[in-house]
Amino acid sequence: MQMSVPRWKAALEKALAAHPKETVIQLASIDPSTPVPHVRSLIFRGFVSPTDTPSHPLLLSNTDVRTPKTAQMIANPHVQVVWWINGTQEQYRIAGKAHIVPAPGHGLHKHFVHPVSALSEGQKYDWEAKRLEVFKNMSPVMKASWCRPVPGSRLEGGQDEAKKWPVQIEEPKPGDEEAKRLWDMSLSNFALVIIEPQDVDYVELAPVPNQRTRFWRANGGAWNEEALVP
Amino acid sequence: MQMSVPRWKAALEKALAAHPKETVIQLASIDPSTPVPHVRSLIFRGFVSPTDTPSHPLLLSNTDVRTPKTAQMIANPHVQVVWWINGTQEQYRIAGKAHIVPAPGHGLHKHFVHPVSALSEGQKYDWEAKRLEVFKNMSPVMKASWCRPVPGSRLEGGQDEAKKWPVQIEEPKPGDEEAKRLWDMSLSNFALVIIEPQDVDYVELAPVPNQRTRFWRANGGAWNEEALVP
Repeated sequence: MQMSVPRWKAALEKALAAHPKETVIQLASIDPSTPVPHVRSLIFRGFVSPTDTPSHPLLLSNTDVRTPKTAQMIANPHVQVVWWINGTQEQYRIAGKAHIVPAPGHGLHKHFVHPVSALSEGQKYDWEAKRLEVFKNMSPVMKASWCRPVPGSRLEGGQDEAKKWPVQIEEPKPGDEEAKRLWDMSLSNFALVIIEPQDVDYVELAPVPNQRTRFWRANGGAWNEEALVP
Repeated sequence: MQMSVPRWKAALEKALAAHPKETVIQLASIDPSTPVPHVRSLIFRGFVSPTDTPSHPLLLSNTDVRTPKTAQMIANPHVQVVWWINGTQEQYRIAGKAHIVPAPGHGLHKHFVHPVSALSEGQKYDWEAKRLEVFKNMSPVMKASWCRPVPGSRLEGGQDEAKKWPVQIEEPKPGDEEAKRLWDMSLSNFALVIIEPQDVDYVELAPVPNQRTRFWRANGGAWNEEALVP
């Protein structure tokens, strides 16, 4: 039992330091209206430790709030992330709970509960400030992607219509009302996805014999670990 | 509607021809005993069209039959594969049914039903021959991995015990009883995983504007497609 940085996180950070481009993760969730699993690629945007508790890191990603996965994960927050790091031949499978942070005025915002075990009574973390910070760091091309019609809806008007979509969105200069309108639209569709890890399956295929370790967060917040057969 | 090779498959084969190492796929399933999704990386081993019907390609992968996912997918065969091809900036999300092909004598073999829509009455496909063919193409190191204790079980005896595991398994020479014992053990734990695609979400991030297409298999087996907003 330890209350410091969990060993799987230290390993992951070491792998990312050596292979900083390997930030594509796959997030699996369940659509509660069917018995069907869903999985898609997302980009890992970093770790957050809202209470400066190193034993409780949260994974940060983002999405368009209008995609079906936001409502699905609010209805059933149990998710698993798989992260294959080719450069180190390591696989991390991170099971836990997903939390969605939409814009404050968005209809889904009322469902957002601060990751409970991260916060003691009276503690607060400014998730809206974090959402703004992550948004500002997105490329102008990414920002433009959140000004399209609803993702996954039928493409009305075909490619001719799609060619009218904004291609890049920059921070608006004072008085540029059209730029401000697009910026605000993009930001209003931008949501954080927070993954709160509870169980991590870490497989190392580079060493011989291969190694596999299970980590799980106990009541009280410390991480246990056990060596498994790969 | 078309009965020829579906367009998503042609696109995938073109991407793989240009980037033949990008064969890591992620397979999501649901553990029916919990409301929790599972996802892990597998290696794509090729397409099979058991009835020479080009409109009905199956995806082929493999696993150790002793992993929990085999029983989970037999209990709930609804799965989704996500395949991010970095070289082309394409994502394929392939929803469908999973079929597990264990060794003929294995307890789970009775659950194997030939992918129904692939086979008309009276048609047969020799899946055991396919299992053998795929097994023989595996590297000696991979073959050795199926002779360990049960994957995911507690590592008894620690790394000292793990160092006794076979490292490579070659096809046994006549009279080499120990090599034959290992070969047979490995083959007995080797199972095919067949994914029968029913709905494919294909996103292309390289073109501007980005493109997204949904393909789905209609009754009768032909594929429909529709352009979506990415």
